[in-house]
Amino acid sequence: MNVPPQRDPSENLPPLLANFPVALPLPVIWGDQDAFGHVNNTVFLRWFEAARVAYLERIGLDRMPPAARTGPILARVTCDFRRQVNYPDQVTIGAKVARLGNTSLTMHHAIFSAAQQAVVAEGDSVVVLFDYEEQRPISLPESLRAAIRALEGAPEL
Amino acid sequence: MNVPPQRDPSENLPPLLANFPVALPLPVIWGDQDAFGHVNNTVFLRWFEAARVAYLERIGLDRMPPAARTGPILARVTCDFRRQVNYPDQVTIGAKVARLGNTSLTMHHAIFSAAQQAVVAEGDSVVVLFDYEEQRPISLPESLRAAIRALEGAPEL
Amino acid sequence: MNVPPQRDPSENLPPLLANFPVALPLPVIWGDQDAFGHVNNTVFLRWFEAARVAYLERIGLDRMPPAARTGPILARVTCDFRRQVNYPDQVTIGAKVARLGNTSLTMHHAIFSAAQQAVVAEGDSVVVLFDYEEQRPISLPESLRAAIRALEGAPEL
Amino acid sequence: MNVPPQRDPSENLPPLLANFPVALPLPVIWGDQDAFGHVNNTVFLRWFEAARVAYLERIGLDRMPPAARTGPILARVTCDFRRQVNYPDQVTIGAKVARLGNTSLTMHHAIFSAAQQAVVAEGDSVVVLFDYEEQRPISLPESLRAAIRALEGAPEL
Repeated sequence: MNVPPQRDPSENLPPLLANFPVALPLPVIWGDQDAFGHVNNTVFLRWFEAARVAYLERIGLDRMPPAARTGPILARVTCDFRRQVNYPDQVTIGAKVARLGNTSLTMHHAIFSAAQQAVVAEGDSVVVLFDYEEQRPISLPESLRAAIRALEGAPEL
Repeated sequence: MNVPPQRDPSENLPPLLANFPVALPLPVIWGDQDAFGHVNNTVFLRWFEAARVAYLERIGLDRMPPAARTGPILARVTCDFRRQVNYPDQVTIGAKVARLGNTSLTMHHAIFSAAQQAVVAEGDSVVVLFDYEEQRPISLPESLRAAIRALEGAPEL
Repeated sequence: MNVPPQRDPSENLPPLLANFPVALPLPVIWGDQDAFGHVNNTVFLRWFEAARVAYLERIGLDRMPPAARTGPILARVTCDFRRQVNYPDQVTIGAKVARLGNTSLTMHHAIFSAAQQAVVAEGDSVVVLFDYEEQRPISLPESLRAAIRALEGAPEL
Repeated sequence: MNVPPQRDPSENLPPLLANFPVALPLPVIWGDQDAFGHVNNTVFLRWFEAARVAYLERIGLDRMPPAARTGPILARVTCDFRRQVNYPDQVTIGAKVARLGNTSLTMHHAIFSAAQQAVVAEGDSVVVLFDYEEQRPISLPESLRAAIRALEGAPEL
């Protein structure tokens, strides 16, 4: 297997993303552009999703229905577009948990552009732990909270 | 030309979208689904975009760069996911202007599912009028404000 | 349930698609465009997929893994792009089975543009009936062949 | 500017892609999956597009309308799907010119999966040099042919 090894977050991390425990580098591809000639807004949300899933994998929350009966579900997403992104470029998407609720967690994202050396977008995802069979939220287990606190280095979360 | 005529918003409008001056019906297609087996979150944002553009066309703000030097740019988007959407279905996406600022407008969206007879998502788009050459926001002209007030039937906007 | 009823293929069918037993109407949306300002090539393949699935549903081949152990898998696709498609427009995508093999079927597609009143693309999909557990093709059952012959009105298939 | 430097094709090139002068590495992201739980067929075509554009950039054919009056247009694409691709993975997409016509070139593609250490798909793109104003194909200029022959190391093309 030649799958690239799990990225060491300290390696090549843009300083502007230094406080994100998970940061995913992705290339901008030609097809990410829309009729305006810059990266389409939905691609930013796809990038958030990719970083969100990378984070959930790090805390063991990546077993998805139908394999598992419970799993994460996206309840809310926001994105502030600060700058247009052009092809070609390389972006890095940070993900960090900003808040732990009873049945949900709020993840914060920032997208860094290598070409612009700037954060081009920021946003939040609210992820709910969901029982897909019962169709209702369930409490985040303590093991999951512990994994998040360890990854964030934030015992107060 | 057999392009379908501009949709009369009063025709077949789901009652739950009655207060949206623009409502765009779209089919859910198989490829809208992700590995969870329901419609992917980025598709909801694509639907918002389709309704947003339909609204902007109604107020004459659809000439896009590079044809025009100034045009709309998306500054912020939010989406609250209330219910999962499954294939097959037919959704209708409402768009209405909730607020007029100096250089921006805030559009509110709701997505109605025919299969569920319910609003499955709501959200907001903040659209800025942008001078792409100067790369800065510009004031919404009075003609545009008037077109929005007329379409909304809301002189107080 | 207000899901639109299964479309009667004889209703509003573009004459150029008269020999397609399944024809799916879809709107062109703004986000289908790429940086060239016309509909991106991958969207044509997404349209083929939507019509292919609609056809498979008509012959009872729409139960998908993991719910089912066997299902269709796409082995090959081709697309000839005859004309650029612009937003806004309404397309209709035809699907018909052109050939039945032992473990596969070849579906032919044509995309008709309402704005251009012309076929804008044609192509083929080779669909294999696949045992996902064993990871190998399996023979098309006689019941499936019969369903296809009936839908096509083509006993010689 | 921290844009990654143009990739040296000899570096880390999968041996199975050794005869492709352009090879583009791309990560598989979560959102590339469809309801079957593997990478959707249209993503393969998006990958072909990304490699095709990378090739066209190498031969100076990347100025696009509306900036330029003439440019490449995709006339035909084919894809043979040899294996399913799963998330996570890293693919490398090769592009080489297999044939030069009067107004068109045929590019061959192969997609290599790092996880499977195998070619998972192959296909061809027929690209026509197009005068968008006149809406007709134009002859490939000798300078372009020379650039392709040099990049391919194939004087006989």
